[in-house]
Amino acid sequence: MTQTSPSARALTFPFELVRPELEKVEAAILDQAKAFDPSVEGYVAYVCKSSGKRIRPALAILSGGATGGVNEEHRRLSVILEMVHIASLVHDDIMDGADIRRGLPTASAKWGNSLSVLLGDSLFAYALELATEFEDRNICRSIAKASRDVCCGEIFQTQRRFDLNLSVADYMRMIEMKTAALFSAATQLGAMLNGRSPEVCDAMRDYGMKLGTAYQIYDDCLDLVGDEKMVGKTLGTDLVKGKLTLPILYLLQSATDAQKTKLSRMLLKGEPMDTTVLAGIADYVGSIERAVQTAKQLLVEADEDLVGLEETPHLEAMRQITGYLHNLLDKCRAVA
Amino acid sequence: MTQTSPSARALTFPFELVRPELEKVEAAILDQAKAFDPSVEGYVAYVCKSSGKRIRPALAILSGGATGGVNEEHRRLSVILEMVHIASLVHDDIMDGADIRRGLPTASAKWGNSLSVLLGDSLFAYALELATEFEDRNICRSIAKASRDVCCGEIFQTQRRFDLNLSVADYMRMIEMKTAALFSAATQLGAMLNGRSPEVCDAMRDYGMKLGTAYQIYDDCLDLVGDEKMVGKTLGTDLVKGKLTLPILYLLQSATDAQKTKLSRMLLKGEPMDTTVLAGIADYVGSIERAVQTAKQLLVEADEDLVGLEETPHLEAMRQITGYLHNLLDKCRAVA
Repeated sequence: MTQTSPSARALTFPFELVRPELEKVEAAILDQAKAFDPSVEGYVAYVCKSSGKRIRPALAILSGGATGGVNEEHRRLSVILEMVHIASLVHDDIMDGADIRRGLPTASAKWGNSLSVLLGDSLFAYALELATEFEDRNICRSIAKASRDVCCGEIFQTQRRFDLNLSVADYMRMIEMKTAALFSAATQLGAMLNGRSPEVCDAMRDYGMKLGTAYQIYDDCLDLVGDEKMVGKTLGTDLVKGKLTLPILYLLQSATDAQKTKLSRMLLKGEPMDTTVLAGIADYVGSIERAVQTAKQLLVEADEDLVGLEETPHLEAMRQITGYLHNLLDKCRAVA
Repeated sequence: MTQTSPSARALTFPFELVRPELEKVEAAILDQAKAFDPSVEGYVAYVCKSSGKRIRPALAILSGGATGGVNEEHRRLSVILEMVHIASLVHDDIMDGADIRRGLPTASAKWGNSLSVLLGDSLFAYALELATEFEDRNICRSIAKASRDVCCGEIFQTQRRFDLNLSVADYMRMIEMKTAALFSAATQLGAMLNGRSPEVCDAMRDYGMKLGTAYQIYDDCLDLVGDEKMVGKTLGTDLVKGKLTLPILYLLQSATDAQKTKLSRMLLKGEPMDTTVLAGIADYVGSIERAVQTAKQLLVEADEDLVGLEETPHLEAMRQITGYLHNLLDKCRAVA
């Protein structure tokens, strides 16, 4: 058996159980382009095709299956959440000046920033338009709220770049908004669409929130310690952009005043940034381990949120996802 | 009596009848900032304060008054449509590289493009979130659809910059989407919220669509022939950006092959752009007059859409608005 890197494997989340459902969702996502004016359709089709592991759709389907069964509304929820996610990626790539995503030119690289701003807006507006088709207005409202959280989390992150006073609590709130909000919308609304009790819906929401947070911490660790060839994207970009992630915040917490001065110089680019050195230090003093532990603890708690729900293959698959992420986090540690 | 220019007067649309209602809406718009995370609130408050003639809110209120009375839902509709409009202005200013709007620095000039992309997204998401509070899901869906039309109209415009083959029909469709969609949403939904018949709602929609289209043609003419000092913004920018507006399209239509070659050189910047010369030619051959006539004809038809509705002060005010725009268009012609 060949060895795979943490994130080459990250591309193969254990979604086997819902593969047939995900294929329907995939076809529906690609189909959405047809709802647009012919002058816009091509752009929409391109960004829908060229993005994503479809984690949010998979979670919506799994949550549906674990709380009473998957129906047409779960598939619609999947499509909507993925379109909101795609819209946010289109705008992220503008802000990051990214040219390549998943091996293909980004919308902003292909068609410029102006068109990409509008394309993201159109996708987003269309996703919310689809969301009005749910009988229950609360579903639409929750999707709009989660979408706003994604944007506000990103604003928060943009504001706090290069801010060495960013607290761990602020960081956690930021990633809950920018990443976990759509994860938890997927799992919570999956249960709401099956008319389940507030307790079940809340448990599902909490599972998604913790999973999404742990996933973002994993992604942040990977940016510091991952292997570019295996991951298939440029790493070390967070620090260059001034995004202070959990292992770095832990490193700052543990530093003496003299060490803090050294770190400040490196992080604020007083000296040329050397991500490898910083990653080495973070590993040496145990900050990466601590971030990995924080994420793993969240996964333990995510599994606990599922306790008491009826045992179904879908519930088991949700536990497999946390198990899978545990594994990725362990490998992250091994790489460091 | 002092002489005022077309658009210094454009700042004082005849909204007297609904002034008290508009003040409530204004307070509500400024209040929305509080619904945001404290880290985002300041940005939202700034862009909500620093923009707009509040035409869309006024139309929603007038339509409500003309179809049975203004209630809380009309005020909510007003706030939502204005927030969608503000979101689109924030993104427009990024794309146009505009530093000043209404005498104040734009969001992108103050905080950069990245933050402004996200700020526009957040405003937009929040507007759609508010829209889920309407009992009737069709209201929310129509708002999302109109918002998407605004974005797609802008995409269309971006695509067709410097395209001398742009037809008048394409131009009309573009401005119906990018400008008139929110006008017609205001007037149509104002009637729908009063539970009026499809006929009344459609008539109101058509009035808004024609008024919005005429308004955009006026704005386009102004960019060509207006007086910067009076208008209070940089003019002649459409042509520099390759936006071909109705007077220019009419000019191209009327040109001989030899004249077309000259125009092409000017419009595609083969020669240094001289807006004054181009405006002079457009006036001389009657293209500005023709554009003004097209807009005025739309206003006549907009008034016809109101025939048959019960006579109320609000209906009369809607006719005053078309009358006011007739007047502005006449002055546009006089300036040229």
